[in-house]
Amino acid sequence: MASEPKELPANNPGLTATPDPATKGYFMQQTMFRIKDPKVSLDFYSRVLGMSLLKRLDFPEMKFSLYFMGYENTAEAPGNPVDRTVWTFSQKATIELTHNWGTESDPEFKGYHNGNSEPRGFGHIGITVDDTYKACERFQSLGVEFVKKPDDGKMKGIAFIKDPDGYWIEIFDQKTIGTVTQAGS
Amino acid sequence: MASEPKELPANNPGLTATPDPATKGYFMQQTMFRIKDPKVSLDFYSRVLGMSLLKRLDFPEMKFSLYFMGYENTAEAPGNPVDRTVWTFSQKATIELTHNWGTESDPEFKGYHNGNSEPRGFGHIGITVDDTYKACERFQSLGVEFVKKPDDGKMKGIAFIKDPDGYWIEIFDQKTIGTVTQAGS
Repeated sequence: MASEPKELPANNPGLTATPDPATKGYFMQQTMFRIKDPKVSLDFYSRVLGMSLLKRLDFPEMKFSLYFMGYENTAEAPGNPVDRTVWTFSQKATIELTHNWGTESDPEFKGYHNGNSEPRGFGHIGITVDDTYKACERFQSLGVEFVKKPDDGKMKGIAFIKDPDGYWIEIFDQKTIGTVTQAGS
Repeated sequence: MASEPKELPANNPGLTATPDPATKGYFMQQTMFRIKDPKVSLDFYSRVLGMSLLKRLDFPEMKFSLYFMGYENTAEAPGNPVDRTVWTFSQKATIELTHNWGTESDPEFKGYHNGNSEPRGFGHIGITVDDTYKACERFQSLGVEFVKKPDDGKMKGIAFIKDPDGYWIEIFDQKTIGTVTQAGS
């Protein structure tokens, strides 16, 4: 069946066989979610997950800031602030953390919804790591909250952790993901 | 100020200066959200946005399927189904569409929550295109729903469209994003 993968358009109603040339060069650049407190989230995404702050955009009139996080080398970022924005938006797969000013100190603020309880929608982001078990031992030592440890449930070798706002982050590695999901492949 | 970007850790409480070597090799692999009807979503993400189906995983016992969409060349994907899973999880920036079987034909199903009305949380994904205005003219000709057309509001040159479930997708290009966001940079 190697020559007849189930991903063929014939097996997937709706799927277009060949991308429209008009979409050439498109890429998936960002995933945005809202955060309560940048101090806490920057710590988590940089210290725990190893991302860097690619770009910060501040809009005082509208009272919000955007923090673009990613795995790029910021030593390569241009010095000019506008050029750095363009550089950031030229990178694939960044995380855009939106901070509406004041939530971090507002006792009335009830927190953000992670999409995994009603009303459901967004599920998670996923990070490929070198070794799921090794990574999760480190997360545990750093006090990270788990939704699912790698040996919980049926899917051994896949973990879910929570970021400071409660958003889920799936953790997996290339060594085990194939066999873990084999039944579904 | 080129030598003192505001993204420095000294200007961003919580931010770690140097990523922990334990996180070396980590990358942002996927963004997952739930969809009502794969036929409709596959059409949108492939025909309208130009993505390909990198991998489909089916779990009949749990009655759900996962559709990994992305801008990779599937002609390079391995023929073996498990190897194709590993290949997929080796790509940055994929979109994982989760289909819980039956929602597409369930008259009781009320649809998914896109995170941009209460309770808020997730905001959007963002696609870098070659030219925002050209891309949006094409989206309009294809009947795509807009949240914001590129010339609406203050942020000229940035658009937001909706996917079939109502999730927001930001559309921008590298030519104009720097000047559009200049006030915040």
